[in-house]
Amino acid sequence: MSQPVDPAKLTADLVRCPSVTPEEGGALQLLQEALADAGFLSIRVDRNGTPNLFARWGTKGHARSFGFNGHTDVVPVGDEAAWTHPPFGAEFDGGWLYGRGATDMKSGVAAFVAAAIDFVRTTPPDGAIILAITGDEEGSSTDGTIAILDWMAEEGEQMTACLVGEPTCPETIGDMIKIGRRGSMTAHITVAGKQGHSAYLHKALNPMPAVALLAHRLSSRVLDEGTDHFDPSTCSVTTIDTGNPASNVIPAQTRMTVNLRFNDTHSGASLTEWLQAEADRVAEETGTRITLEAKISGEPFLTPPGALSTLVSQAIHKETNQNPVLSTTGGTSDARFVKSHCPVVEFGLVGHRMHEVDERVWVQDIHDLKRIYGRILTDYFA
Amino acid sequence: MSQPVDPAKLTADLVRCPSVTPEEGGALQLLQEALADAGFLSIRVDRNGTPNLFARWGTKGHARSFGFNGHTDVVPVGDEAAWTHPPFGAEFDGGWLYGRGATDMKSGVAAFVAAAIDFVRTTPPDGAIILAITGDEEGSSTDGTIAILDWMAEEGEQMTACLVGEPTCPETIGDMIKIGRRGSMTAHITVAGKQGHSAYLHKALNPMPAVALLAHRLSSRVLDEGTDHFDPSTCSVTTIDTGNPASNVIPAQTRMTVNLRFNDTHSGASLTEWLQAEADRVAEETGTRITLEAKISGEPFLTPPGALSTLVSQAIHKETNQNPVLSTTGGTSDARFVKSHCPVVEFGLVGHRMHEVDERVWVQDIHDLKRIYGRILTDYFA
Repeated sequence: MSQPVDPAKLTADLVRCPSVTPEEGGALQLLQEALADAGFLSIRVDRNGTPNLFARWGTKGHARSFGFNGHTDVVPVGDEAAWTHPPFGAEFDGGWLYGRGATDMKSGVAAFVAAAIDFVRTTPPDGAIILAITGDEEGSSTDGTIAILDWMAEEGEQMTACLVGEPTCPETIGDMIKIGRRGSMTAHITVAGKQGHSAYLHKALNPMPAVALLAHRLSSRVLDEGTDHFDPSTCSVTTIDTGNPASNVIPAQTRMTVNLRFNDTHSGASLTEWLQAEADRVAEETGTRITLEAKISGEPFLTPPGALSTLVSQAIHKETNQNPVLSTTGGTSDARFVKSHCPVVEFGLVGHRMHEVDERVWVQDIHDLKRIYGRILTDYFA
Repeated sequence: MSQPVDPAKLTADLVRCPSVTPEEGGALQLLQEALADAGFLSIRVDRNGTPNLFARWGTKGHARSFGFNGHTDVVPVGDEAAWTHPPFGAEFDGGWLYGRGATDMKSGVAAFVAAAIDFVRTTPPDGAIILAITGDEEGSSTDGTIAILDWMAEEGEQMTACLVGEPTCPETIGDMIKIGRRGSMTAHITVAGKQGHSAYLHKALNPMPAVALLAHRLSSRVLDEGTDHFDPSTCSVTTIDTGNPASNVIPAQTRMTVNLRFNDTHSGASLTEWLQAEADRVAEETGTRITLEAKISGEPFLTPPGALSTLVSQAIHKETNQNPVLSTTGGTSDARFVKSHCPVVEFGLVGHRMHEVDERVWVQDIHDLKRIYGRILTDYFA
């Protein structure tokens, strides 16, 4: 009989792999071998150089195929000198494990890999467990989880439910599950006028009043009041840049970027249309030329409260006595790809200093998370 | 009997002096010698390294002391390869004289120096002629014409009327005199909020809606409708810069620059107060912190139509048959300093490609300008 897998040790081993996007750094290889040793089909499904790992225990296409999704890539370390512990050192100190990826999300991956291996060894289920782990969630994500899902569709591989192991808890492990996400889009807007001298305004056309008016209107607009499951949609002007060093010169043009987070009362297309209409109106009112380039990062989605969220909530309650909030807050995650494949929820750790220096994870939380994931598997296959 | 001074040749000699601010380039030295040869007291009155020339013919403190003011420094040549004639070559071609400073304003200086020398040689007046010529009008101007005026005050030197020889004519020589100028000021405004993530707006305070609102209000405000002698005052936002490359980040702060051109219904102080009040109002409405730094380049001034403008207008009419418009349009000039010393008007050439590549002057205009300046002296001392 094998020993249970130690998820904290596995997290530390993963942190020592310098897998800054797009580097694989040895992280997926380590997992591939561990899963193969435990009897999983464990194969790399890279696309366009992006490293991806697919693993399955049990029968392909089984009607009870529970999936976990996560990523091993991490964001850059930033100012390495500012770290109190080396970012790829995986040092344990005062109950914490330090390192880039300690919470986002090598600990989450380690917890579900450990839980899955232990589960199939101790209580082999009548069903399948699938692990879809990518090496590009922090980058463009174009050949990451979505590539694994594409490959699965071609191969007839199917999850019947999926849990994304991203950090979801604001304060205490178990306090929040994510059952959807708002959509996200960014628009780059250029307002063009006519350059001239500040003392001869009639010969110039200043784009600045136009960009101010447009920024004011976009910022002031109440897009909605929120829904049962979603916060209100927001539209944030994130930058305006003109780069005109001369105060006696009217600039020829200026640029603005707008970021929108939106719930399911909107779509990327409906908001692009709204932005374009507002831009056209300001252009007409001011005589400027306004161009707009919109990029939709993700549409909003919701896995309505039901069997999957109840399963996860009850497992959390049994293991931690917490009653998790069902939330749709936060940025995007790979759940936005998985939602087209099967019902998906997200649950993971508290995100201590994610993307910052001295990223770290409370070691006990990794063990708790493994227990919760194990309980989810037990209950799912019960 | 000396030959008349050729103002086109003198302009060419001055253009050959590479007097890009703050370089003297030999230009003031050339004039100092020419004026001394013609019997003028001709001395350098430099301050803090800025070269300045003071010249007087006739009695100090005479009740009829006509002055000319101008500058020999020029702005940089810019893209030298784009010039069709070398910028310090002073080449004559097709009726034009090419070079940096050809219109702004070595030709104007050459014309009044030539006119003054010829006048005192042929018809020595009962009075004085004063020339105040600086080597820093295009730069900070802090030790230029104002330093000559300070020196004159200390020495008991006094002009009773002054003509600034800057280019003033939009189309044809003789079509415009400037009898005043609007004031000019610039305000640098910083709007500070709190940095955060675009998906968690409640944890951030975006400064962009505040800067947009302030820019919109400042741009929309009608400051006045103009006066008998002045165009309406204007307030131009000339740049907004944030420098936030990440569309998922709410920036901590942003900066805006505002340039105001204002008539004598306002002052630099009253407009600073207005800007501060608008900034405070937006800060209160948005919860941001807004700081403002105002720099007043010049207060508005007017030499009301009267003896001096009539003298100049009539001289122009006699020599060119033009009826010049009395205007206060355009940017600032050193007339803003002279106005505290004595009545001042500005009259000079058409400004062909001032501050641009291939700056040039129509040679016949230089001769015409010398004749007009000579006529002004004749009539003033008649």
